[in-house]
Amino acid sequence: MAISLSLSELAQRIDGKIICGEAGSLFSGMAALDMAGADDISFLGNEKYLPQFLATKAGAVLVPTGYDFNTNGPALIAVENPSLAFGIVVKHFAAQAKSFRAGVHPSVSVSTNALFDPDKVCLHPGVVIMDGVSIGDGSEIGANTVIHENVVIGRDCNIGSNVTVRERSVLGDRVAIQPGAVIGSDGYGYEFSGGRHVKIDQVGIVEIGDDVEIGANTTIDRARFGKTIIGEGTKIDNLVQIGHNVVIGRHCLIVSQSGLAGSSKIEDYVTVAAQVGIVGHVVVGSKAILTARTGVTTDLEGGITYSGKPALPIKEDTKIQAHVRRLPQMLKRIKSLEKLLSRVD
Amino acid sequence: MAISLSLSELAQRIDGKIICGEAGSLFSGMAALDMAGADDISFLGNEKYLPQFLATKAGAVLVPTGYDFNTNGPALIAVENPSLAFGIVVKHFAAQAKSFRAGVHPSVSVSTNALFDPDKVCLHPGVVIMDGVSIGDGSEIGANTVIHENVVIGRDCNIGSNVTVRERSVLGDRVAIQPGAVIGSDGYGYEFSGGRHVKIDQVGIVEIGDDVEIGANTTIDRARFGKTIIGEGTKIDNLVQIGHNVVIGRHCLIVSQSGLAGSSKIEDYVTVAAQVGIVGHVVVGSKAILTARTGVTTDLEGGITYSGKPALPIKEDTKIQAHVRRLPQMLKRIKSLEKLLSRVD
Amino acid sequence: MAISLSLSELAQRIDGKIICGEAGSLFSGMAALDMAGADDISFLGNEKYLPQFLATKAGAVLVPTGYDFNTNGPALIAVENPSLAFGIVVKHFAAQAKSFRAGVHPSVSVSTNALFDPDKVCLHPGVVIMDGVSIGDGSEIGANTVIHENVVIGRDCNIGSNVTVRERSVLGDRVAIQPGAVIGSDGYGYEFSGGRHVKIDQVGIVEIGDDVEIGANTTIDRARFGKTIIGEGTKIDNLVQIGHNVVIGRHCLIVSQSGLAGSSKIEDYVTVAAQVGIVGHVVVGSKAILTARTGVTTDLEGGITYSGKPALPIKEDTKIQAHVRRLPQMLKRIKSLEKLLSRVD
Repeated sequence: MAISLSLSELAQRIDGKIICGEAGSLFSGMAALDMAGADDISFLGNEKYLPQFLATKAGAVLVPTGYDFNTNGPALIAVENPSLAFGIVVKHFAAQAKSFRAGVHPSVSVSTNALFDPDKVCLHPGVVIMDGVSIGDGSEIGANTVIHENVVIGRDCNIGSNVTVRERSVLGDRVAIQPGAVIGSDGYGYEFSGGRHVKIDQVGIVEIGDDVEIGANTTIDRARFGKTIIGEGTKIDNLVQIGHNVVIGRHCLIVSQSGLAGSSKIEDYVTVAAQVGIVGHVVVGSKAILTARTGVTTDLEGGITYSGKPALPIKEDTKIQAHVRRLPQMLKRIKSLEKLLSRVD
Repeated sequence: MAISLSLSELAQRIDGKIICGEAGSLFSGMAALDMAGADDISFLGNEKYLPQFLATKAGAVLVPTGYDFNTNGPALIAVENPSLAFGIVVKHFAAQAKSFRAGVHPSVSVSTNALFDPDKVCLHPGVVIMDGVSIGDGSEIGANTVIHENVVIGRDCNIGSNVTVRERSVLGDRVAIQPGAVIGSDGYGYEFSGGRHVKIDQVGIVEIGDDVEIGANTTIDRARFGKTIIGEGTKIDNLVQIGHNVVIGRHCLIVSQSGLAGSSKIEDYVTVAAQVGIVGHVVVGSKAILTARTGVTTDLEGGITYSGKPALPIKEDTKIQAHVRRLPQMLKRIKSLEKLLSRVD
Repeated sequence: MAISLSLSELAQRIDGKIICGEAGSLFSGMAALDMAGADDISFLGNEKYLPQFLATKAGAVLVPTGYDFNTNGPALIAVENPSLAFGIVVKHFAAQAKSFRAGVHPSVSVSTNALFDPDKVCLHPGVVIMDGVSIGDGSEIGANTVIHENVVIGRDCNIGSNVTVRERSVLGDRVAIQPGAVIGSDGYGYEFSGGRHVKIDQVGIVEIGDDVEIGANTTIDRARFGKTIIGEGTKIDNLVQIGHNVVIGRHCLIVSQSGLAGSSKIEDYVTVAAQVGIVGHVVVGSKAILTARTGVTTDLEGGITYSGKPALPIKEDTKIQAHVRRLPQMLKRIKSLEKLLSRVD
C-alpha cells in the first residue's frame, strides 16, 4: 500500500477517461464502495451496487462507460470494464504477493533421483518429493505437500500447502493448485462378485494442461487406465469432484461443489456453475452453460444454457418451473370446472 | 470412565428430579438406549427413540419433564432438556479430552520473526509457521498444519491437523478449526479476455470472529480485496464452501456441504441446513432458516423458514410440492372433464 | 508394460473364448477403444461404446458373450464380463503398483509408546504417530499423514498422504484411505443457550470394518458418544460427509459428494449414488438403491430403487417428473376447457 497514484496516472494506467475530479488528486489505497474513504479508489462493477455508489465516501470511483452519473461526490473515471480495470489498481496497491524465492528448505524429503534445479525451484518446509519426480524451473511447492513417484511438474507452477499429487500425474506450465487438493486419487470402480465389491485396479494418470487452476480441497481421480484430462486454461473451483477418465476441454469453468462422474466429457469453453452433477459417460458440447445445480443425465448440445434436473434449455425449464409454482391455482381451476360441469350435467 | 455417580449425585449435577429409582444406586458409564447396560446412564432426547427407551437395559435414563412414563425398568430423572443434561454426564465420564500441554515439537519449522511464547502455545510435529505469524497464549496447532505469512491467531484457539491458513488471515479467540480445512484460499475470479480466463488478483483476507468453529475439509476463500468475514460464534460444518467476500453474521449455523457464493451475505442467527446453495451478491436476513438443499437466488427476508429452489417460505413450497405429487391425479381429472365436455358438446 | 501376451495366453488368463484372430498374435499394451493401436488389447464394456468399437484400431478386443459381432478388424475374445476381464489385463500390463517396502522414514515423528513392528510397516516421510497408536503388520501410512492418540490400525491397511485419523478411531484389516480424508473429526452438535451455540462434547469414536475404502477428502465424524460405524466391505467415494453416530452396514456403496446426517442408519448392501442427502435419525433398508441426488427425509424400505426429494420409488417419481414436464400443456388443456365451458354456460 506504498505508492500513491494521481487521478491522471490512474486514468492512464487503466486506459479510462476522467469524467470529473482533479487530475492531480492523490489516492493511496483501495476499498469496496461502502468501506472506502477519501484516499481510496473504488469501483462500480455491478448495477446492484448503485445504492452503495451513491452513498460512497471513496475519493475516486471507476464506472462503466456510457452511464450518466450525477454525483457531487468522488472523482469518476469511465472505463469499459470497471471490474477488470480495478484489477490493475489492485495489482498496483496490493501488498506484493510474496515474490518467488528459489530454495529447498532443509526439512524437505527429496528422493535421490528426483530431477530439478535446487537453485530454480522453491520447496517449502515439509514437502515430500518421491522417486523420479521432475519439477520445472520457477515452480513453487507449498509446505507439507506430497509429490508422489514419477510426477512431472512444468515450469512456473504454483502448488499450495498440504496438496497431494499422486504417482505419474503430469502437470503443464503455470498450473496453480490451491491448498488441500488431491490430484490422482484412485478412481471409484468396483465389480460386484461373491457378495463383495472387488476393487478394479486404477492404473491410469491425471494430465493437466498449461494455465489450469485447481481449487482448494478439490479431488481429481486418475484414470482406470489411460488418462483423466484437464484441458489447457480450465479453471476449477473448490471442493469439486472429477471422476476417473473424465475429459475436460480447454478454457472451461467448473464452479464449487460440482461433480463430474467417471468418463464424462465436457468440450471446450463449457461453464459448469456451482453444485452441478454430471453422470458418467455423457458429453456436454462446446460453450454449453450449465447453471447452478443442473443435473446432467444425457448428452447435451453445445452453445446452449441449461438448467434443472434433468437438464433442459433454460427457457423451457424456467417455463415449467413457473407452472409448478402455479399448481395450487391450476387445481382450483380444475375444481371450478368440475363444479360447473356437475351443474351442466 | 473412572468415577461412579450415584443417582442422587446425578440428579443434583443436572438439576433434575428423580422420578423413580434409589438415590444411592451407582452408575459407572454412559451409552445410547439400545447399547446401555445396568451400570450405564442413558437419555431420551427425541421421541423417535421411544421404542428403544421402552426396551432399554440402562440403569438410569434422563427423560424430559412432563412426560408420563410407566416403566418397571431403569431409574428415571426428569430434566427440561435431556440431551443437554446428558452432555454434563458425558463431560463427567468421558476419557478426559487430552489437556493442553504447552510446547513446540522439535520438528516444527518456525520463521525467526514469528511472535508467540513457546511456553504458552502447543505446536505439534510438522507444523510450519511462516514469517510474521502471531499466536495467542493457550492456542494449539495440530500436526502438519501450515500457517502462512502474517496470520494472526488469538488466544485459546484449537487448530486441527493438516489445516492450511493462508497469509494475513485473522482469527479471534477460541476459534476451533477441524482437520483439513483451508482458510484463505484464492477466490474464484476470472475475466474472459482474448479467448482465455484471466485470473483476477485475490489480495484480501479472511477474518474469523471469536468462538467460531470450522468443520473438516471446509474451504473459505479470502476476499478479492477487503475481507471475507465469519461472525463471532458462528459454527460451520464439514465440506462447506465459503466464497470470496462473503459476510456471515454472528451465531449462524452452516451445515455440511452447503455453499455460499462470492459476496453473498447472511445476517445474524441464520441457520443454513445441509447442501444449501446461495448465489453471489444476495442477502439473507437475520434468523432466517434455510432447510436442507434450499437454493437461494434472491434476497430473503429474515425470520422466515424457507425451502425449495428457488427458495420459498416453507409452507408455500410444501403446498406446491404436495401438488406436484398429485399431478398424475390432476391429469386424470382434466381427462375426465374433457370426456364429459365432448359429450356436452 | 514389459511382457507381451499372445492371444491364446490372453484367452486363457481371462477364461474367454477366441471368436476370431490368430492364437499366436502378440500384444504388448492396453488402451481404450478409441486410443488403441495394433499392439493393444482393448474391451467393449458398455453398449454406448459400440461406435468406438466399430472404428477401433485395437489389435484385440474383449467383448461380451452372446453378442454377434461382424468385424474385419481386431481379434475378438468373448467373456462374460469384459470390464472385469480387462482388469486382469490391466493387472498384467500396468506398471507394477509400487510394492510394499517396510521401513520408517527418519523424518517420521513417533511417540515412544506407539505399538508396531518397524520392520513390518511402512511409514512415509513426515508421518506423525501419537501416543498409544498401534499399527498392524503390512500397513502403509502415506507421507505427512497424522495418526492421533490411541488409534488402532489393522493389518495390510493402505492409508494415503495428508490423511488425518483422530484419537481412538479403530480401523480393521485391509482398510484403504485415499489422500486428504479426515476420520474422527468432531460431530456437529450444539445446544442453543443464552443467545449462543454451545458445543456439545463429542467423545465417541469412528469404527471402520475390514476391507473398507474411503475416498479423497471425505470426512467422517466421530460419535457424540459411542461409535460412528462403517461396516465391512463398504466403499466410500471422494468428498462424502458422514455425520456423527451414523451407522453404515456392510458392503454399501456411497458415491461422491453425498452426505449422511447424524444418527442416520443405512443397512447392508445399500447403494447411495452421487450428491444424495440423508437427514438425521432415519433408516434406509438393506439393498435399497438411492439414485443420484435423492433426498431422504423418512425411513425407507429396503430392496427398492428411489429417486427425487422427498425420495419416492423411482417409477413413481419418474412418472411425476414426466407430468411436471407436461405442465404447460396441461394448463392449455384447462384453458380450452374453460373456454368451452364459458360457451356452454
